[in-house]
Formats: sequence, C-alpha cells, structure tokens
Amino acid sequence: MTQTIAILGASGYTGAELVRLIATHPSLRAVALSGDRKAGMSMGDVFPHLRHLGLPDLVRIEDIDFAGVDLAFCALPHATSQAVIADLPRDLKVVDLSADFRLRDPADYQKWYGKPHSAPDLQKEAVYGLTEFYREQIRAARLVAGTGCNAAAGQYALRPLISAGVIDLDEIVIDLKAGVSGAGRSLKENLLHAELSGGTHPYSAGGTHRHLGEFDQEFSLLAGRSVRVQFTPHLMPFNRGILVTVYVRGDAAEIHATLAAAYAPEPFLEVLPFGALPSTRSIAGSNYVHVGVIGDRLPGRAVVMVAMDNLAKGSSGQAIQNANLMLGNDETAGLMLAPVFP
Amino acid sequence: MTQTIAILGASGYTGAELVRLIATHPSLRAVALSGDRKAGMSMGDVFPHLRHLGLPDLVRIEDIDFAGVDLAFCALPHATSQAVIADLPRDLKVVDLSADFRLRDPADYQKWYGKPHSAPDLQKEAVYGLTEFYREQIRAARLVAGTGCNAAAGQYALRPLISAGVIDLDEIVIDLKAGVSGAGRSLKENLLHAELSGGTHPYSAGGTHRHLGEFDQEFSLLAGRSVRVQFTPHLMPFNRGILVTVYVRGDAAEIHATLAAAYAPEPFLEVLPFGALPSTRSIAGSNYVHVGVIGDRLPGRAVVMVAMDNLAKGSSGQAIQNANLMLGNDETAGLMLAPVFP
Amino acid sequence: MTQTIAILGASGYTGAELVRLIATHPSLRAVALSGDRKAGMSMGDVFPHLRHLGLPDLVRIEDIDFAGVDLAFCALPHATSQAVIADLPRDLKVVDLSADFRLRDPADYQKWYGKPHSAPDLQKEAVYGLTEFYREQIRAARLVAGTGCNAAAGQYALRPLISAGVIDLDEIVIDLKAGVSGAGRSLKENLLHAELSGGTHPYSAGGTHRHLGEFDQEFSLLAGRSVRVQFTPHLMPFNRGILVTVYVRGDAAEIHATLAAAYAPEPFLEVLPFGALPSTRSIAGSNYVHVGVIGDRLPGRAVVMVAMDNLAKGSSGQAIQNANLMLGNDETAGLMLAPVFP
Amino acid sequence: MTQTIAILGASGYTGAELVRLIATHPSLRAVALSGDRKAGMSMGDVFPHLRHLGLPDLVRIEDIDFAGVDLAFCALPHATSQAVIADLPRDLKVVDLSADFRLRDPADYQKWYGKPHSAPDLQKEAVYGLTEFYREQIRAARLVAGTGCNAAAGQYALRPLISAGVIDLDEIVIDLKAGVSGAGRSLKENLLHAELSGGTHPYSAGGTHRHLGEFDQEFSLLAGRSVRVQFTPHLMPFNRGILVTVYVRGDAAEIHATLAAAYAPEPFLEVLPFGALPSTRSIAGSNYVHVGVIGDRLPGRAVVMVAMDNLAKGSSGQAIQNANLMLGNDETAGLMLAPVFP
Repeated sequence: MTQTIAILGASGYTGAELVRLIATHPSLRAVALSGDRKAGMSMGDVFPHLRHLGLPDLVRIEDIDFAGVDLAFCALPHATSQAVIADLPRDLKVVDLSADFRLRDPADYQKWYGKPHSAPDLQKEAVYGLTEFYREQIRAARLVAGTGCNAAAGQYALRPLISAGVIDLDEIVIDLKAGVSGAGRSLKENLLHAELSGGTHPYSAGGTHRHLGEFDQEFSLLAGRSVRVQFTPHLMPFNRGILVTVYVRGDAAEIHATLAAAYAPEPFLEVLPFGALPSTRSIAGSNYVHVGVIGDRLPGRAVVMVAMDNLAKGSSGQAIQNANLMLGNDETAGLMLAPVFP
Repeated sequence: MTQTIAILGASGYTGAELVRLIATHPSLRAVALSGDRKAGMSMGDVFPHLRHLGLPDLVRIEDIDFAGVDLAFCALPHATSQAVIADLPRDLKVVDLSADFRLRDPADYQKWYGKPHSAPDLQKEAVYGLTEFYREQIRAARLVAGTGCNAAAGQYALRPLISAGVIDLDEIVIDLKAGVSGAGRSLKENLLHAELSGGTHPYSAGGTHRHLGEFDQEFSLLAGRSVRVQFTPHLMPFNRGILVTVYVRGDAAEIHATLAAAYAPEPFLEVLPFGALPSTRSIAGSNYVHVGVIGDRLPGRAVVMVAMDNLAKGSSGQAIQNANLMLGNDETAGLMLAPVFP
Repeated sequence: MTQTIAILGASGYTGAELVRLIATHPSLRAVALSGDRKAGMSMGDVFPHLRHLGLPDLVRIEDIDFAGVDLAFCALPHATSQAVIADLPRDLKVVDLSADFRLRDPADYQKWYGKPHSAPDLQKEAVYGLTEFYREQIRAARLVAGTGCNAAAGQYALRPLISAGVIDLDEIVIDLKAGVSGAGRSLKENLLHAELSGGTHPYSAGGTHRHLGEFDQEFSLLAGRSVRVQFTPHLMPFNRGILVTVYVRGDAAEIHATLAAAYAPEPFLEVLPFGALPSTRSIAGSNYVHVGVIGDRLPGRAVVMVAMDNLAKGSSGQAIQNANLMLGNDETAGLMLAPVFP
Repeated sequence: MTQTIAILGASGYTGAELVRLIATHPSLRAVALSGDRKAGMSMGDVFPHLRHLGLPDLVRIEDIDFAGVDLAFCALPHATSQAVIADLPRDLKVVDLSADFRLRDPADYQKWYGKPHSAPDLQKEAVYGLTEFYREQIRAARLVAGTGCNAAAGQYALRPLISAGVIDLDEIVIDLKAGVSGAGRSLKENLLHAELSGGTHPYSAGGTHRHLGEFDQEFSLLAGRSVRVQFTPHLMPFNRGILVTVYVRGDAAEIHATLAAAYAPEPFLEVLPFGALPSTRSIAGSNYVHVGVIGDRLPGRAVVMVAMDNLAKGSSGQAIQNANLMLGNDETAGLMLAPVFP
C-alpha cells in the first residue's frame, strides 16, 4: 500500500528531513513538493543529499492537485501556515510543523506571536502533536499541530512528573542548549559559521521565548492550575540536537521511577539508569529521546535531562509519527533508524 | 528470513556503524558482538546511541559459538585480523574490514605494513571488496577484504578512466581531505578535539600512506602496467566524509562521459552534471557516493572529485553491501538510508 | 627591566598559554620550561605555534637552577603540584595553576580531592588568586593559588551580589557550559574530536564537581554563613570559553546595578547593558570577562551570565595578572590583547 | 608618537581584525571608523569583542575629516574601494584591502572582475602589497594594494622557487583549503553553520577563481614568461586559516633549501625542517606563516605547504605590516602576537 504525501515548504530543513525519513518509509511516497521561492527547481539542486531519490520538482502550492493526496505536511514559516491550510481541501489530512496551531487559545496566540490568529476555527480543530500524550486524539484528527522542538524536549522531562505530582510546580528551571538547525535555513548574521561556531550564545532569555506559550498551556492544563517555568535557551555550535537541563524540586529516585514507568511502553523514549547523563550525540539523526535523572547534593533537588534531535523527533520525525497514526500505519513505521555516531 | 551475524571488534567505530546499519536491515541480525577490552559490557554502555537495540553484550571472540553464525564481520585492528580469521571455522563467510587482506602479494604487504603476512593462504583466498568492480567474485567469495576508505574514494574517481584509457597514467595527483573517524576510536593527541578542530592537518605525505599499496596494486592491474600516483591526505575537522580532489590529464568532457556511463547502472554512485562539485555534507551517513568532473582553464587538464562517507560506503556500508552479495540478498538491502543533512 | 620566569609543566595547555602571553609581555621572560615526559624536546616540537619564539628546550624540574628565577608558574597536574612546590626554594615567588592550594581547610581538600594534603603549611600560606577580590593579599604573597576556571566564572557572577546582600543565598543555580581545553591535553576517549564535536555532554552533575569546594568556601566566607549552590557543568564542542548561566532570586535591576558598580574600576570586567547577553566568542583569546544580567518574567527572578576564556582569564591570564602584582608591575601588563574574532 | 588611523569598512571581518591588531599596536590609534549600513552604531554593538576599547562610533565615510588622519585602511568590498579611494585626499596614505588594485593591467582587471576599472591612474600608482617581496616600493608608496589571501599563501610557497629556477613552471598545482572568514560577513546560504560545518566544499574550481589573476601576473613577472598554475580552492569548516598544498616538480632538498634561504631573514616566515608539515592551527590569530617541504616517492616531485591566517597575515596583518613601512615604524610593530592555540 502506498500513501501519497504532499510536503508544503520542502525547501527548508524540516521539509528536507521529511523527505529523508520518507525515503525509507515502507508506505509513504512524496508525490508533490512545494517551495515557492524555489519553484521549478529540482530537489537535488536545493538539497544535493536528496538527489538520488527521483523526487518531483518543487512547485508552487497552487499548482498542486490535492485530489490524489492522502496527507499533507505543512513545513511553512509561522503565520504563512494558517493562511495556506485554510485554503486546503477541508477533508485533507494535515500535519502542520509551524507554530500556528500549537496554542489553543486565540488570546495566547496573540500574546506570543504578536497578531490575531487568522483561522481560529482551524485552531480549535487542531490537536496538539506531542504523540505520546495525545495519541488517541491524533489518531482521530484531521489537523495536527507539531510542537515546538524546545517545547517537546521540556515536556518530555516534565509531563509525567507534573501528572504524578512529584515535583514542586513553582520551582522549575529549564536551561536549554539547542543546535542551530532549529533556526532554519534563514540568512541571519548570527547563524553564519564564522559567528556561531566555536562558542555558545544565549538568546530569548528572561521569559520571552515563544515556546513558553506551549509550556504554560500544557503544564497548566496538566496540573489543573497555572504553572510558569523559567526558561533560558542557548544556541550551540552544532547542527542537530537539543539538551534540556531541568532543575526541579522533589525526590530524585521517585522522579526517576516516575519517568521510567511513564516511558516504559514508549518505543522512542529511553530512560537512562539513575545518575546517567544523556548527550545529544547519542540521538542525532534519529527519533529516539534519552532521558536522565540525577539527584543533587542539596536534599530535595534533582536534575532531569532530555536529549532529542530537534529536526527528527522534535519536528519532522514527530510529524511522521503522527501521520502514521492518522493514516492507520504502525506508529513507528519508517522511524526506527538508529542514531548516527560518530 | 533471518541471517545471523557476528561482529568481531564491535567496540570501534566501524563496528558501531555495522550495528547501526544492521539495525534496520531487513534480514541481518547481530547475534554476537566481540570487544576484547570491553568484554562483559553492554553495547549501550560502549555506544549509548545503540542502547535501544536490545543487543547482546560484548564478549571475547573465543566465547562466540560460530556454529549458528551465517557471516562474520571482522572489524579488528590491522594485524590482529589475520590471526583471528585464521582461527575461525573455514566454512564461515567473513567480511574483513581491516587492511590485512587488501594486498594480494605478500611482498607488497610486507613493504607497506612492515612485517610478513601470517596467513598467506587466506591472503590468496581473499577477494578485494570494491563492490562495483568485483561484484561477481564477491558473490562467490568466502573471505572478502574491505578496501581502505581513502583507497575506495580514489578508485571511484579513477578506475573507469584507467580502464577506458582516457587519462595520462603518469600524471595523477590525489589530494585527499578526510574526516577524523577514519582514524578510529584511538587515544592519540592529534585526534583530541582541542588539537584537531578548527584547522587542517596534512599527514603521511610524500608517498608514505599505506593506502598507496592499494592504489598501486589496483591501478597497475587495471592498466596492465605499473601506475604510481601522487597522494597527499589531510585530516579535517569533521567526523564523517572523504573528499578526493584528483588532478588528471585528459579531455574533461570525455572523462565525465566515461564516469557517467560507468556508474549509470550503479545504485550508490551518482555522477553530478558536468562542472558540479560534490561535498561531503551531501553524502554523510549514507552509502551514496557523489562524483564530479570539471575541466581546467589549462587545456587537457581536468579535476575529478569524489565525496564519500568513510564509515559507511568507505567501510561498514561497503561491508554490508558485500555481505548482501555473499548471502544472496538484494545488494542494496539495508543500505538505502538517505544522507543526513544538516 | 626583565623579570625571569620558570614555567613548570610547560607542555600542557595552561603552560602553552603562559608562554603565549609572556611572548608579548613587556618585562617577563621565560628562562626555564619543564615538561617531565617531554624533557629534551623543543617547545616548537611540543607546540608548533610557539616555534618562532626562541624558547629554551623543555627540561626536568630538577635540572632548573632557580637561583636566577624571579617567579615560577606551576602548571602541573593536581596533587603533583604540592609536592613540587614544597621542594622549591622557600623565597621563590610561585603562582600555582593547579587545584592544590585553592582550598584553605585541609578537611575540605581531603573531602573534594580524596586524600590528605601533603603540604598543609603551604596550603596555609597560599593566597586565593581571584585577583579582583584578593588584590592586596596577592600583591604581598609569595605563593598564590590560581582558581578553578569554572569557579572563577561563577564567582564573577555572584560575589558582588552576595556581598551586597541582594540575592537569596539559598536559591542559586549555576548551569555551566565549558570549552574542552579546560580538560587539558589528556588522552581520554570523551575528549576525542569524533566523540565531542557536534554535541553537548553534561558531566559531574548533582553536586560532585570539585570546583564546588571553591564555591562553598568563598561564598560562605563572604556571606558569613554556609552557602551551597547547585552546579551543573556541560562539556561543549569548542576549545576556549566558559559561559555560566546563573539563576538567582532578587531584583534584576538592583543586581545589574550592583555588578556594574563593583566592576566599574576593573580593567578586565565588562558589565553589558541591562538585558544584553554575553557570548564566549566575544572574549576568546583574551583576559576580558563579559557579564550580563536579565530579569525574568517571574517576578523576583533574574539570570546573571558570565563569559570568560578558561585558559586566559580563567587560568594563565589570571596567573600573569597575579604575577604582575607580585612583581610590582602594572597589573594589566601583557594582558591587553583583544579577543580573537571570528 | 601616535599615528592616527581611519578604517573605512570597519564593520566587516578585515575591519575588525585591523581594530584588534591596532588595539595593542604601540603607535597606531584608530580615530575614525566607517561602516555605511551601520553608521551611528558603536563598534561594541557591531563587534562585542571590541567593546572594551573605547572606539569612536561608526560613521559614514563622507563624515570623516581626513585632515588629521595619517593613514587610511580601506576594507571595503571590491569595486566600492576604487570609487572611494578616488575621492580621498591625494596625499593621504592608503592601504587598500580589497581586490581593486591588485592587478596592474586594466585588461587583466576587466578579465577577472568583469568590468572596466574606474580609477586606472590609481591602479597604476598602487604598489602590490606582498611585503616580503615589495618592501622598498611599499616603503615609498602612497597607495598599497593588499593581496588576495589565497594569492599570498600560494606566492609564499612559490616565489623563491620561481626566482631560483628550481621548479618546472608548467607543472604547478595548488590545492587550497580555506577557512570561512575569507568569505566575509556576508549573508549567503552556503556560509551558514548548518550548511558549512562538518564537511568540505570545493568552489571556483577549474581555473575560475579571481586570485588566479594575481598568480598569473606575479609568477609571469617573476619568471619573465607566461606562467599558468592550476588552482582548486576548498571551503573548510573553520574560521581562520589557509593551507595550500602545492605540487611541484623539482628536487625536494633544493626546494627546501631555497625557501629556507629566502625566508631566513624574514620575521614572520618560518620554514619547518625538511619533511615537517604545517597546520593552520599553529598560526591562527597571528602574522606568522609556516612553510613545509616534503619530497615524493616519485622522483623529481615535491610538495610545498604553506599555512597562514587569512585574516591576519593574509589581510589585516599584512596591511598593518605595510602601514608600518609607509609610516616609518618598525615593520613588525604590533604584529608579534603569538598564535592562539588551542
């Protein structure tokens, strides 16, 4: 069985990662690729690493015939996505990788993204795409909103702990180290090799990063009360991977046991032995997530660390995992690729 | 159908790469992993990126029961390999990744490796493992010698040109840029991040690199006369990938046409359009090889470039491709993973 | 005027950094260099970047005549240092870069370093070398103990705040990102380029890192009560630089004003405008320290960040700054080199 | 004595490198900095690593009063430079870092840069700035043209050999590995960290790189006949440094002796012992150049390697060295900074 796929926004990094993963997926087949500024080009010219795949050339979205398409991945920039999806056939299954449908409340969207949402009906319809925690809703959904990559990493560290009530909800600090591919293929001075390599650059500190909107929404929903975390991201001189170092209050052994129990049935979530620390190098290129817990010398304090590939599990891998659910496939189909090391 | 595999020397980088590739191979299954110094450890401790795979623990070679093994990959250090393989059951299929069986002539082995070969009978039996050029012999072989990674890259640039007689055999210069994983997981000062990163380091210049033994052997055999190339390798601050820049004399268009024709049927060899230049980033993590040709402003001169992943196509990917042939599998089984970018 | 200098342990990174800085220092001259395992070699063989300097060859410590030496830098491994310094002439000025004399209390030393101190008299004599806070004692000292590089970075963030009483002493979290040169030129698997590059690796988490001994000692001394911070270091894929992200409770504006006032007279400490974030790239290769403060969306919380070159200001630059004081030089002599970027 | 300096184009990498080197120069003082697009900004905002220097803010060129300026460095983009310099006072000493005055012949300029030169009189007046070979002309010059960084590296390898007649002029191949800062602070997709890091990228192959204009001009002038080399540059994943691997025909020992003799009196040119190979890491951040020679196993062939910092000796360091000559300073003033390693 072949399931036909369109990728809108195939000329960016998440688009290319979708193509990479679909290349060895047992049933998905990319039949249409859009890339407005690069329409007319072959994917091999835009991404030489994909040149062997015999892919369709990039076209404009309006030139895609969605009649024969089973599911569309929408890997467009934030804000563009909501307009494009509003114009797609209403029965087309869509997995959106932008930020447009992550926040449920139009007021939250306006607060974090600075303008009103243009498709509030779709916003209402969309299911939040953190697979392990919204599996059944995703299976039944037509429109799934991919999570922020940083937001996913933080939630993997904290959701089971909040649900189980084993940590202090008012004392959560997330210190995040992020690879540069999360910033996309955008021409910004700070993303140049000469600027970024060989050092570390904090950004969006002090509670201003947009993924806090997701943390606020999801953690508060889980806790049944307002939860506000502290969050400091740092841009790192590597291409793939996120490490979150999460400072929490609670019993470290209980925290470890809670996470281990929560993730035991999960195919992609690996809880390391107590005290072992994860590294981004050990998950790069894959859909796997490594979770570590260690206690502190200060009683009642612990650190939870999560390592995840921002492009794979944090974005395009998650999208395919969700698409598998929406299309009735085995959830792990095409996603069992082992991490690439060294 | 499951084919059972032993990996001798699974605690090094080529061993780990074999495990990575076998993880999503449709029929191969790793049933025994050896690692003498690390015997008793789990692969997840030695290589955390493989921890999810449920692999057997590392054992000593002498503790492996080869009765139930269909094929052994031998990823041991040079010189160790010949002793170990001599002790394996004589009907066990073996793909060796070391340098021990690459040179056919005991005198050549002694010249390049500085001591006599201890298993000259096996050396005679071994088939040189450059798949595209020894396919039928490999299919029938019991013992296949994996090529040097640098040697493979240079041969992909030159073999069809030598066969077709379209270049001057006395005017070949190979300038090679190599990622550091080719040096293995060895504790050497020059391989430390603090020493190697951020710069470029030539080594084994002047005609002293051991892979010249393979160039001499293979090119002379092809040409029916002695061929001696000039070869300068440079260690580069990246982990995966080899780029060879090969300076040749001949008609550039003819050179391009010759390579394009030779590699048209090959599943993993991609000849770029004339004038396009390959990059190691476009093949990293995969079994694909990119080949580019450009003419020079000086008439009668051309440059052939080849980009290849030293651990995949240059070593463990090649080994699996050869194992597929030896076991009667589709040659590309398990090897169609797309390159990882960015 | 020339001041003659011996460097004990000149074959490591801090030794080489001393030589680099002394190369353009107006009065210091390196007249003896030791390197036990490399005795007999020229510095140009051990560190080719220093080959133009006409340096003395490496010798064994016992072959140095200290009669003509004004000051010795001791850049030896921890534990070795205390034995060596005990044997030096008692009137020789010494700046030690090891951990051996950082902790004043023999019990603390035993706790963090796992064995009794062998030279408790020297331990008593030694002055803690954080220049800006021990300037007068250093000027009068014979033996100065260089600080831990991580310990220096954390103290630059916190000392003025503790002294001024503007932060909560029980709620301090230091999340540290460290370049790899801090680990020295040691042959460890995790320091290989193939292992370390392209990712981030937490280590010594949970309150086990030895630099906590310095934090405990210094912060408690300042506060007049026991202060215990939480501290998580992460090894980063770059060679030079430390960034500490310090989470504190207090008024952000007051915190910024306190740091700005404290460091206004300091030649090497630059407090950025409120809300500006420092980067390690902006101080690499120099003795400068960048300090940033930002408030959090959560009232009463702030983040202080400090970027510092671990080899320069965190180790060898600090050592020369202290030597300048001990020798009656201008404190900044030889240290005004601007950072190297890009 | 203070010599007042204007830097036109101070917001690029070569401009920042000039400021870095001038920061510890004994007599030069930067009194005016231009940066058209960033006029009005402080240098600390444009380059945070220079924030401690108390520099003048960036202005437009037309707002600089050149009356009080002793010498101007012109670090503007190619083509812009010739127009700007034509409008400067005719008695102002100028060191130009662009490509605009490197080629003496207007026809050559048009050939390599694609349009007619707009200031042919200045082009005639300009002295080629390869200090070691044009020292006396530079001392007397008003306008000096900085060389291409790649062109400098290649000439350091070859000029003495051509002059001495010890190599075959028709058999020269230059394979060049270049750090990315040579491409400037320009927003191009291929210069992004996510694209460039972790791999190697050939470019401008086949005889199309503009620095060939300089090779052709200089080598032919030296030889008294037309000399045409083959030249292939590769962009490398590091920020500073160029390594040229130059394949020549001649007697290796004679080649080494020729270079050693030629550079013996030179303060910045270090010829390594025969057979030793240079690395870019050993000169980064400095004005030093390392030259290595090795013979090949093929009789009559040798490889000459040169490692040089493209921003320092290849551009801004060379410019200051030339300015020192033009202003009557010690040629090495401000340039003796040792390389930064690791």
